[in-house]
Amino acid sequence: MRTRLTERFGVEFPLFAFSHCRDVVAAVTNAGGFGVLGAVAYSAERLDEELTWIDAQVGGRPYGVDVLVPGKIDAAAAVPGARLPDLIPEAHRDFVDHLFRKYGVGGPGETGVVGAGSPEDAGDVGRRVTHEGATRLIDVALKHPIGLIASALGPPPPEMVERARAAGVPVAALVGTVEHAARQVAAGADIIVAQGTEAGGHTGEVSTMVLVPQVVDAVAPVPVLAAGGIADGRQVAAALALGAEGVWCGSVWLTTDEAETPPAVKRKMLAATSRDTVRSRSRTGKPARQLRSAWTEEWDGAPESPGPLGMPLQLLLAEEAMARVGRAAEAGAPGARELANYFVGQVVGQMNQVKPARQVVYEMIEEYADAVGRLRVITDS
Amino acid sequence: MRTRLTERFGVEFPLFAFSHCRDVVAAVTNAGGFGVLGAVAYSAERLDEELTWIDAQVGGRPYGVDVLVPGKIDAAAAVPGARLPDLIPEAHRDFVDHLFRKYGVGGPGETGVVGAGSPEDAGDVGRRVTHEGATRLIDVALKHPIGLIASALGPPPPEMVERARAAGVPVAALVGTVEHAARQVAAGADIIVAQGTEAGGHTGEVSTMVLVPQVVDAVAPVPVLAAGGIADGRQVAAALALGAEGVWCGSVWLTTDEAETPPAVKRKMLAATSRDTVRSRSRTGKPARQLRSAWTEEWDGAPESPGPLGMPLQLLLAEEAMARVGRAAEAGAPGARELANYFVGQVVGQMNQVKPARQVVYEMIEEYADAVGRLRVITDS
Repeated sequence: MRTRLTERFGVEFPLFAFSHCRDVVAAVTNAGGFGVLGAVAYSAERLDEELTWIDAQVGGRPYGVDVLVPGKIDAAAAVPGARLPDLIPEAHRDFVDHLFRKYGVGGPGETGVVGAGSPEDAGDVGRRVTHEGATRLIDVALKHPIGLIASALGPPPPEMVERARAAGVPVAALVGTVEHAARQVAAGADIIVAQGTEAGGHTGEVSTMVLVPQVVDAVAPVPVLAAGGIADGRQVAAALALGAEGVWCGSVWLTTDEAETPPAVKRKMLAATSRDTVRSRSRTGKPARQLRSAWTEEWDGAPESPGPLGMPLQLLLAEEAMARVGRAAEAGAPGARELANYFVGQVVGQMNQVKPARQVVYEMIEEYADAVGRLRVITDS
Repeated sequence: MRTRLTERFGVEFPLFAFSHCRDVVAAVTNAGGFGVLGAVAYSAERLDEELTWIDAQVGGRPYGVDVLVPGKIDAAAAVPGARLPDLIPEAHRDFVDHLFRKYGVGGPGETGVVGAGSPEDAGDVGRRVTHEGATRLIDVALKHPIGLIASALGPPPPEMVERARAAGVPVAALVGTVEHAARQVAAGADIIVAQGTEAGGHTGEVSTMVLVPQVVDAVAPVPVLAAGGIADGRQVAAALALGAEGVWCGSVWLTTDEAETPPAVKRKMLAATSRDTVRSRSRTGKPARQLRSAWTEEWDGAPESPGPLGMPLQLLLAEEAMARVGRAAEAGAPGARELANYFVGQVVGQMNQVKPARQVVYEMIEEYADAVGRLRVITDS
């Protein structure tokens, strides 16, 4: 099997696997695909450790890193050195406390402190999605033999493109519209990831089926990866039929053996249908597809909801709250299980069984071959 | 080219073209596809005329008819013989009048009468989507040599299945979820049309890429057509890769030479991007994808909006209002052009040129062959 991307990256199957979990990244790379580690989950120091571990696992096979660089973030939060927790309004902390009480999460001593952590911990996840934070992560990543830097949410900042170019590392950029694709290419992206609305995480409104051919035409000859709605080999074949030269998958790894998905969330994902996701601002401040849960319903629908904050303040607030929700859910609190959620695409309806990541890759390759074989029979008859 | 559906229907290319316009139906059928006339636009008498015209054009080639039979409609409207215009509340008529004044549609003598037409005309479009009305349309259709009856929105009613079976005509049913697909097969559907959220008209939330493989697996061995996001041959190839045995397209015909799309709407469609549609209840009472316009924005977002009525009352109100908007838009009223809209899928972003329907079919066949050829090269390299 050969596309320009299998050639360029030296992979056997043009499957780019996004995961926050180093084990998934290494497993996919070792199975013939290309693992991409989501760096936003980590501090600069921790990222260095994770990449060192991956380097030891993959024996020179290719992998990459993904950073989140939003085009626009909350103005006050964008000031370098801003103490992010101080920027979260009282009403929003109060609403989280109200949810904790309503759903029985945490003891009385645990309420009233969301977003009040030290800048070193609570604020850090928020700061990593500022230009300042993302640049630190990129500096760390470029010390490792990475094969790709991917930028989600906005055009790659010039300093990212310059550093990557200097290191000979191509830059991929995720887009949800044709207009953004052209802008990303102008900003220096070498590869466009056209991501349909059905994808997990930050996503636009246009579906993969509609978006991919338009992006392919708009950015030619820049190669395109299709993302959103891809979890089996039939969907890989469909993506290539649309003109993509590979696929980018994130959700399907969340229910693998290797995934560090919180157990309560993993159980929800295994049981969920494709109708159980929602695009909501309630986890990051920007529309992101995730499991529908009491968290999304309350933020988006409750009359007393103050409405989500912008990026990165809502992200900071939600990450801290969800860490507590996760602990309570593991302790068996039923209300916490109602609140628990995570980013996932509509393919969650196809994720019904826990498997090793390697097996997911092998099945995808086999299903891809079957799908193309079926197309041949249809076409040649 | 051969699938079970090309065999069964005797077509050269498994393209099912839904249109309210007889010229499109005949053109697609004559070009090697399968035209399906949307019957809900017509009275029983008029439908008979349209089908007689088609019979004369297609010389025995296959075509079908689509009726709209919602599973659930407004309870009062479901009573046989109900005078539908009387069921529209004052607040809803008033809101339409307010919109007419705000957007400068119609003279003073023309306001205040929406929904007040006689049951023979104004109420008729609403009554056609009741079981009573749909059954009359089916009776007319079965007097013609039709090859398919399609049922949108709910499981085909038993009387429809019985009549079709007795006449040897297969029944297709449109679904937006896996659960509904199983229910439709149980109700007697011979073919399932799995329609993604990107489709125009009544549509669910799950995308074509995600929905089709799940429906194929759930209803096997019942054959599946893919709908939603399909307007060129790459998308046809993708649909077949997903496991469908053909495609169902509606939007792409709206900007053909033959289409009777109101000129103001046609211009909007040619200019629209894939982001310019919205799923809204404001035209029929059930979520239906359409051009985003002042009509959808006002009904769905204005503080003074009473919110849409159920099906079929909102359909009745909107059809009458939109007929007036269309006349005013043609007369050059800029406000009317802001309000004007119509059902269309996200593929509207690909519809940038007026073409004969025949040419759309030929291009699709050619692009399909190219896409499959590209997949072969990728796979065999």
